[in-house]
Amino acid sequence: MKHTISILVRNQFGVLARVAGLFSGRGYNIDSLCVAETQDPDYSQMTIVARGEDDILEQINKQLNKLVDVVKVADFREKECVIREMALIKVNTSSQTRGEIIQIVNVFRAKTIDISHKSMTVEVTGPENKISAIIEMLTPFGIKEISRTGRVAMARK
Amino acid sequence: MKHTISILVRNQFGVLARVAGLFSGRGYNIDSLCVAETQDPDYSQMTIVARGEDDILEQINKQLNKLVDVVKVADFREKECVIREMALIKVNTSSQTRGEIIQIVNVFRAKTIDISHKSMTVEVTGPENKISAIIEMLTPFGIKEISRTGRVAMARK
Repeated sequence: MKHTISILVRNQFGVLARVAGLFSGRGYNIDSLCVAETQDPDYSQMTIVARGEDDILEQINKQLNKLVDVVKVADFREKECVIREMALIKVNTSSQTRGEIIQIVNVFRAKTIDISHKSMTVEVTGPENKISAIIEMLTPFGIKEISRTGRVAMARK
Repeated sequence: MKHTISILVRNQFGVLARVAGLFSGRGYNIDSLCVAETQDPDYSQMTIVARGEDDILEQINKQLNKLVDVVKVADFREKECVIREMALIKVNTSSQTRGEIIQIVNVFRAKTIDISHKSMTVEVTGPENKISAIIEMLTPFGIKEISRTGRVAMARK
């Protein structure tokens, strides 16, 4: 089962390595991780998507709460939340295919952020399945590169 | 100086902890990190934004290339590239302020992705300074929560 966990940490050297080590040390696979500073530059917010057994996750949560630099752990398993990720997709284009690609970009409310004679870079945001869907639609044209952020999550209300 | 480094890694247990450990072990501060699976589920792509001396980064690059699970390291220092990040911002609203907030959201070509009686969640993408600018504009209304992905980068051409 996939879990989305949000962790607020103090910006100390090695905190990211320690958190990541907790997961890998217990054989818990991290599918994606985002970490960035919060408004207060002394703290960073991590969002981790991980797969594994519920009881092991319970243990990891307890261990996380014991780390001195961890301020808060939220598990979005059961809560109502909005989940988003972003992907940059560079797709092959030619004067023949460009129009069709732009149509697809518009349908997905994505944005074209770079263009050259032979390729276009598209920015798309949304839940995972939307991003998978646009990737599938663009694959026949030839995808040169994809860079995804991984999920960020926020509780509703 | 800020560096944006993109790393393609094989999905092995502990690879994230090892990469993060390399940076922290040399006193190199990671500002943001994104890691997510590529189209091939055996590989993940990391984007790291880090601050520190150029010569130490040179050493880190060499060490990264020695890790067996690291396939490719690209440093966007000098190359032309597009850099984007995404932020979810939850801002206090009331029936009086909602209209003004929606105007700001539209100017930044951001999207409202959730709404309740007392708050709104906004999704914004762009370079760092655009995200900082919308945060600054929304601050007077009262920001309840921000979740940022950190940068992803892609070479132009």
